[in-house]
Order: sequence, then C-alpha cells, then structure tokens
Amino acid sequence: MENAAAKGATLVVFPELAFTTFFPRWLLDEKEVLSQFETAMPNPHVQPLFDRARELGVGFYVGYAELTPDSQQFNTSIIVAPDGKLLGKYRKVHLPGSVEPRAGARYQQLEKRYFDYGDLGFPVFRSGPEWANTLMGMLICNDRRWPEGWRSLALQGMELLCVGYNSAAYDPNGGDTESAELRTFHAQLVVQANAYMNACWAVAVAKAGNEDGSGLIGGSCIVDPNGLIVAQTHSLADEVIVADCDMDLCTQGKSKMFNFEAHRRPMHYERLCKQTGVIIPENEKTV
Amino acid sequence: MENAAAKGATLVVFPELAFTTFFPRWLLDEKEVLSQFETAMPNPHVQPLFDRARELGVGFYVGYAELTPDSQQFNTSIIVAPDGKLLGKYRKVHLPGSVEPRAGARYQQLEKRYFDYGDLGFPVFRSGPEWANTLMGMLICNDRRWPEGWRSLALQGMELLCVGYNSAAYDPNGGDTESAELRTFHAQLVVQANAYMNACWAVAVAKAGNEDGSGLIGGSCIVDPNGLIVAQTHSLADEVIVADCDMDLCTQGKSKMFNFEAHRRPMHYERLCKQTGVIIPENEKTV
Repeated sequence: MENAAAKGATLVVFPELAFTTFFPRWLLDEKEVLSQFETAMPNPHVQPLFDRARELGVGFYVGYAELTPDSQQFNTSIIVAPDGKLLGKYRKVHLPGSVEPRAGARYQQLEKRYFDYGDLGFPVFRSGPEWANTLMGMLICNDRRWPEGWRSLALQGMELLCVGYNSAAYDPNGGDTESAELRTFHAQLVVQANAYMNACWAVAVAKAGNEDGSGLIGGSCIVDPNGLIVAQTHSLADEVIVADCDMDLCTQGKSKMFNFEAHRRPMHYERLCKQTGVIIPENEKTV
Repeated sequence: MENAAAKGATLVVFPELAFTTFFPRWLLDEKEVLSQFETAMPNPHVQPLFDRARELGVGFYVGYAELTPDSQQFNTSIIVAPDGKLLGKYRKVHLPGSVEPRAGARYQQLEKRYFDYGDLGFPVFRSGPEWANTLMGMLICNDRRWPEGWRSLALQGMELLCVGYNSAAYDPNGGDTESAELRTFHAQLVVQANAYMNACWAVAVAKAGNEDGSGLIGGSCIVDPNGLIVAQTHSLADEVIVADCDMDLCTQGKSKMFNFEAHRRPMHYERLCKQTGVIIPENEKTV
C-alpha cells in the first residue's frame, strides 16, 4: 500500500482472502476453519491497515473470510474509501469447488464446504468525488469467469470493477490439462473480454506465488474499457502496478457499441434466468 | 469450398451476408434494398453452391438477407448438412447501427433500418453422425459481442458455434478511436473468451478486405474450448483455414469449471432478463 501510494495510487486492490492463506485448499476441522474468519471488519488485527490507508489518503479493496453474527460464512470483499469509510461490501456468488473433499487429491478446492453462497447480489457503489464519483463493482476470483456477474453490474452503470483472486497454478478441479500458463491466460482473457463487453475498467489482482506450499498463478492486470491491458505484473513475486484510469474512456462503449438500451434483447435471454444447468432440447429444432 | 474440402473439411463456414455486399453501409431506396434479399433458400442463383457441397460431401454455414412471404426482412444464417438438408436457421438478434442515417457519414450502419430483429431466439441443432452428433449454434457478426447469446446456446448444450461477420475496418458508430487493429483484437477477444466461458468450439469467419470501396477487418479464427486460437487467417485476402475440432475437448469445461448446474446462481441474474438498459440505483447501496 505504501509503495502504491508513493507511485500516486489512490485506490489499492488487494487479493481475495488477503488476511489468511487460501485455506479452502485444505480439509480442516471446524475449529481450524473458524480461525480463518473475521467476525468484524475492521478489527484490531487489521486496524493498522485501515489507519495507514487513511494517513496515506488511499482507499482499498480487500478480500477476507467473513463470519456473521448468525454464523454464516462468506467469501467477502469490501471497498474502503480514502476517508476510511466502508463504501461497499460484496459476498462471492460463484463459489467453485465442492462440499466433499476429493479422495487422494493433494490440494482440495472446498469453497462450497466452507462458505455460504453470497446473498447480496451484485451491488454497485458510487464513490465520492475523490474517485470522480465512479460507479464501482466487485467480484471475487471465480466470479470473473461468469459473464452474468459482470453484466448485472454493468446494467447498473458500473465503470470500474475490482476483483481479487487466488487461482491455483494447477487445475483445482482435478483435470490434468491446465498448465499454469494456460490458467493465467484464462484469468486475463475473461477480464479483458468482460471489461470490453461491459465498457468498464477492471483491476484484477492475484495472490501469486508459493503460498503454504502450494502454487498460485499471477497475471494481475489493469484493463481498460477496450479490453486492453494497460499494466500487468511480470513475475510471481510481490509487485505493485499502477495505472491512471480515466473513467471517460467508458463513454464510447457505453453510448455506442454496448448501448444496452439500444441493442439488448432480453426477450430472448429467458434461459439465463429460468434455468440453472444445461437442458438439451428434446427435439432439437429443425427448419 | 473446394479448397476447404480438398484440405479435409466437412463443414465450411462462410461469412454473414455472403451472397451480397454488406449493403447496410449504404443508404438505399426500397427497390435497391429488396434486390439484396433472397425470397427462398436455396434458389436458382445459389443452387450450384448447394449442389457442389453435396457432391463434395461437405456441409456449410452461410449468411444471407432473408425476405419472408409476409415481407419480414432478416439477417439470417443457415447450416446445411453434408446431405444437402437444412439443419437449422438463425436470425440475427443483436442488430447494430441505427434506423436513421448519420448525416455526413461516408459509410452508414443501417442494419436497424433494413432488418427486423431476429425472432427465433437462440436455437441449437444436433448434427447427424457425419458431424459426430454435435450440438451446433449460430450467431451473426455483432451477436458475438453479446455474452447473453452464447450463454443461451450453451444452456442447451452447444458444443460448436459458427459465426460469420462483416466488420468495418473503421468505427461504424462514428467514433474515431477504433483502428482496424483494435477492431480485429476485439473480434478475436470476444470469440476466445466466450468459447472458453461456454466450453465450446467457435468458428468465426470474416468477409475481409476491400468490398464495394469500403474496408472490412479479417481475423477469421477457429477457437477451442480453452479459448485458444488453433487456426487463423493472416491477411485480408481470400484464405482457407482448417482445423480438426474434437468435441470431446468440451467435456472438461462443461463438467468442471463451467458445470452450470453446479455453479450458476440465476436468482442473482434477474437484471439480465428484467431490464434492457442501464438503471443506476437511485440510492447506491452502502454497507
């Protein structure tokens, strides 16, 4: 955060589950799991981060494991404004992985076991004038692969999307065809395309490298509304990348190519909301 | 088609509006417009193409302007099976451009003037065994930028998507910031990302180069379910590219990362179907 502020940043984006290891890779007992969660935000353990941010005049996005008073467990992110106030909260909707561990797997992906599905939908938040009154949205990790989330935010005018991630350098689903290189390509591809198709800026930030004996991909990037990467990391080590994001660059896309009011045809999108999984038509249509 | 068949292709994908110029770039009178439309498919003018395809044992996707008996005008594509039978028809849903011409513009984009919005939704069609009983979908040009169309098809199990296009080498919306290079990047980016996010193959085919005094981008490509380009054109001249598309490569994505039944959360997608344009929440949420 200090390095970013020194480079002129006023918004710093940290990864998903930034205060802990990516614990869904391990099968843990209940006590171990609960020790990963925050019961308040901020809290004494993270207060120094909040204090330093306000001193520096920067705000931030950060992800953490949230335990609610009624014992719900969410994979959560917040945006804190430069004045220290919570601008908004998001709870991850697209939980990957499984409830039950996979037998014999070295690493698990147990987000469906440890987290409840996000219950806040996809809210947007308008920043104060220090961030140009920007309409901001959040996603968390796997959410970025799901165009429904991006579109739900863009339909509320979202101009800047923040997404932190922890993505394994191996296939967390047990496949053997996804190299770290391919997974990094996927991570950037979906951010670039969804930023373009929604005419917004996107900041995607990895917790990269070796964590807890397991590999995580990098590929953090700042993407403009044309889907072009304007800054990206080049290693798996700690890096700070900075870009000046001009929200006026959203205007051309939002008013022309992706003018939703002029061009969307929701009467033909019913399947997106009415069904969850694949339904192959019994009698595929013929002319 | 003969070159493609000689290279082993059994499916040949032609561009959008393949039998005419891309006439929506011109402001035409009614008689001129109607002369661009086909009242039957096939018809005597195109019968040689259909005959030769059957002789070669290849099927094809082709786009054309369709005039119906009740005078509706659609931007249409069909897939013809290797046995000469029509496998399916699609009518373009996402018509770009405008109804009224833009004053002073050298080139127009008048698809909303000359075409009715497609009324068939996004149907999938199952091929015969000569194409491995593949579930096939179609889009046309601008449709490929709209994830709603891809998802509607993938929710019916679509494994192979064909999309023909005519995309101007300049910004057809009158902006001055989109170079031909940037527009080609956009064209490939959306096909790669949507193929990945829907775990399908995609074949995207440009009518490239100088047509009728106006420039069209190229960038035709065949993309696998990882979003990787496995074959692409390298010029604006006539080219044939061929790839062997193994539909089993869809299985990993469809059963794991993009297992829709396991991971989609339609209760949070309501905006996609209930609203057309952007609605900025009156009181943006705060925590």
